[in-house]
Amino acid sequence: MGFEVTDKKIIIIGCGASGGTAAQFARKTDRKASITIVEQGKYSQYSKCGLPYTVSGEIPNVYDLIEYDSEWFKKEKIELLLNSTVSDINTKSQSVTIQNDTETIEKKYDTLIFCTGAFPFVPPIKNINTNDGLADNVFSVRTIDDVKNISSKIKKDMKATIIGAGLIGLEMADCLYKKGLKITIIEALPQILANNMDEDTLQPILSILTEKTTLYTNHIAVQAKQKNDKVTSIIIQNQKDSKQQEIDTDIVIIATGTKPNVSLAEKIGCTIGKTGGIVVNQQAQTSLKDVYAAGDCTQYNNSINDKPTLIGLGSIAVRQAIAAGINAAGKSYELPKGVLLTRTSEFFGIEIAAVGLDSNASKDIPMIYAKLKGSSKPPYFPGGEPIVIKIGIHEKTGVILAAQAVGSNAAQRINTFACAIQNKVNVEDFRKLETAYAPPIAPTLDVITLVCDIASRKFKGKNR
Amino acid sequence: MGFEVTDKKIIIIGCGASGGTAAQFARKTDRKASITIVEQGKYSQYSKCGLPYTVSGEIPNVYDLIEYDSEWFKKEKIELLLNSTVSDINTKSQSVTIQNDTETIEKKYDTLIFCTGAFPFVPPIKNINTNDGLADNVFSVRTIDDVKNISSKIKKDMKATIIGAGLIGLEMADCLYKKGLKITIIEALPQILANNMDEDTLQPILSILTEKTTLYTNHIAVQAKQKNDKVTSIIIQNQKDSKQQEIDTDIVIIATGTKPNVSLAEKIGCTIGKTGGIVVNQQAQTSLKDVYAAGDCTQYNNSINDKPTLIGLGSIAVRQAIAAGINAAGKSYELPKGVLLTRTSEFFGIEIAAVGLDSNASKDIPMIYAKLKGSSKPPYFPGGEPIVIKIGIHEKTGVILAAQAVGSNAAQRINTFACAIQNKVNVEDFRKLETAYAPPIAPTLDVITLVCDIASRKFKGKNR
Repeated sequence: MGFEVTDKKIIIIGCGASGGTAAQFARKTDRKASITIVEQGKYSQYSKCGLPYTVSGEIPNVYDLIEYDSEWFKKEKIELLLNSTVSDINTKSQSVTIQNDTETIEKKYDTLIFCTGAFPFVPPIKNINTNDGLADNVFSVRTIDDVKNISSKIKKDMKATIIGAGLIGLEMADCLYKKGLKITIIEALPQILANNMDEDTLQPILSILTEKTTLYTNHIAVQAKQKNDKVTSIIIQNQKDSKQQEIDTDIVIIATGTKPNVSLAEKIGCTIGKTGGIVVNQQAQTSLKDVYAAGDCTQYNNSINDKPTLIGLGSIAVRQAIAAGINAAGKSYELPKGVLLTRTSEFFGIEIAAVGLDSNASKDIPMIYAKLKGSSKPPYFPGGEPIVIKIGIHEKTGVILAAQAVGSNAAQRINTFACAIQNKVNVEDFRKLETAYAPPIAPTLDVITLVCDIASRKFKGKNR
Repeated sequence: MGFEVTDKKIIIIGCGASGGTAAQFARKTDRKASITIVEQGKYSQYSKCGLPYTVSGEIPNVYDLIEYDSEWFKKEKIELLLNSTVSDINTKSQSVTIQNDTETIEKKYDTLIFCTGAFPFVPPIKNINTNDGLADNVFSVRTIDDVKNISSKIKKDMKATIIGAGLIGLEMADCLYKKGLKITIIEALPQILANNMDEDTLQPILSILTEKTTLYTNHIAVQAKQKNDKVTSIIIQNQKDSKQQEIDTDIVIIATGTKPNVSLAEKIGCTIGKTGGIVVNQQAQTSLKDVYAAGDCTQYNNSINDKPTLIGLGSIAVRQAIAAGINAAGKSYELPKGVLLTRTSEFFGIEIAAVGLDSNASKDIPMIYAKLKGSSKPPYFPGGEPIVIKIGIHEKTGVILAAQAVGSNAAQRINTFACAIQNKVNVEDFRKLETAYAPPIAPTLDVITLVCDIASRKFKGKNR
């Protein structure tokens, strides 16, 4: 365990996207610092977001997900302790207790970074567990081992039940569908992709889900039936009329969200926010001096209504980690005041993206919404793809606060709205934005400005 | 010739994209106004930008380009006079003299809109003309009849010579290549796409042009040889050493730019700018009261260095026409103070886009440039496409002033920079922009922010 200690000592707990990135940026900031990462798993920094695509085979080898391997950390003189856990932290002596199979050591730190991520949340489904954890054919999608296990179990024509119709649930539905499985999706809420998209933008996705899968919204999984430690069926219950039905299944995927892993941080006195995440500031600093945090274990305000938000997005994790790494290494890097929650995914060939809060989450802000269905190309050019776009503006100021898109280049179109929201651009200015036009590529007036014309008319109607 | 005159009288000269759009927005603004469009050609509003793609066959029928047909204008109670020219304008009596094959009429106006477009510029190539205009196999690409003629003349394995390697020249090169012709491109300047892109971003295009066509930069076409009113070869001359060579050809495309059609406007006293276009303001108004102009016949300032610019982009033409139509009809609509010159195209499968001035045109501004070659997807996800991205920021302020992209989703990526430039966003803020990330769609940190990290480092280096 050891490189020569020359200078500042930085310890990072966790080597996911944020832990690895924090180490990388700490090293860029201070070439001499002693940097140690303690990772409980057996792999170095890999992409969690890529996990579903190893099941579909789009990513051919699960180990391709490893973005920086042990060699890379070695080359950068970053000490990487795999299969190791931090069992205790002493903030007075500024040291952590690290345990692995063979030894327990104490290690001093000057700055500490929590990149402890989040645990998959498993809802209370009766009989989903064996004595030994989840039943043999029930999986979360959180680690390389999870998807290795899923891939080893699936065969064409098997029945898969996916619990949770959020981003991961639908990504897994698509990936398992591509492998020829028959898909049933169970969602407790009245709509899919809650917290991500408004229901009225989702028609293209709903059409294809209805065609290619069996989708139960407003249903909760209440009980599993097992045989030989395997779940053979799931009993689901309609939330409206409490009627139950039994869904036969060969494999169950739990995709009902995550819970931040904050026990160590809480123990040493870091403030935990009401969302359950470690509260961090613009420097990715916790409430304790010299202690930073980044990624899925943190809570940060969103820039829309300044309310605390759990950070469950890899893109934000990496940006926080850049700040944590640089600040922990002694230079200064400030994050924007709040996050925009820019997000995207793709299921069954349809791209979705959004930025800002969905309508439910922004109920406390007086908003005007506008929606438009347009095309990616001018009407005379064959091959234009449909796009549904919806924006939300502040009812009194006209400032753009949210945007959602489903269809062609949704993510890049939403990035332009992200820039607008970051800079508090008014819908009156944005609707005059000169977008790029060429017949094979985009229409003369892109849907991103046309939807603003609609919002502008509504705004003027309300504020005349 | 006539609908009942009820109220305000608006006459629009020209029914291209800007003339048709101006009429449409004038009508939306004033349901009762008498609106007349005088168009010298035989077709109503069609897409000039779409012309090349009727030659390749991507747009199967040339008449598909007609965006609003005579019926549409009739339904909107807009009088459309085709095959008609305005021979004179009397600003005192506020009337125009309109001629067609059979009659000459006077028509009163309250407001007048010039949408007279631009003529193709034909460089002085000896012997390119017959007594009857251009030789039989020499064409510009400006009208439906031009491309109908081109399409009727071309056959697989013919030799095509394209004079001018700007947007239209390269679009035609691609479209004729798709029909199996052998392509030679002659460009007088040292680089292709001058005024649009910097040479150092163009390597992907140059590679493919070198592979699929014969490209002569730094060469001017000096003379044509004719047989039976057809050009059989073009003699080109190297601008450096004056060496000449003869290029056999079956068809010649002239794509060396356009000249604004301003003679009528000039005659009545509209100020013509030094670029040769009609000077218009934020209301799309000329120097004369009650006289407006929009599109390729106008000059407007660009928002980067506030210098006058010729508007040769359909996207801007339409935006000016919206302003002209609304203002001419009596309501108020203000354009942004300057144009961003957001532009895009695609040749040989490679998308290019840019916003702001190219490096040459912004020599008077102290700039810092940064360039990056990245990918459209994370490295572990197969199928990522290369993107070259270059930005220019102000050396003293760090404000983003220009961006260029070649590759995957160049246009939508440039739109995000257009939003940044419109709102004078600093590179320090833009580089922290939260872009949408998902493995099949975009990397954790998009090239649009990564290139800003490079610019930021250079900026800090210069301003420490």
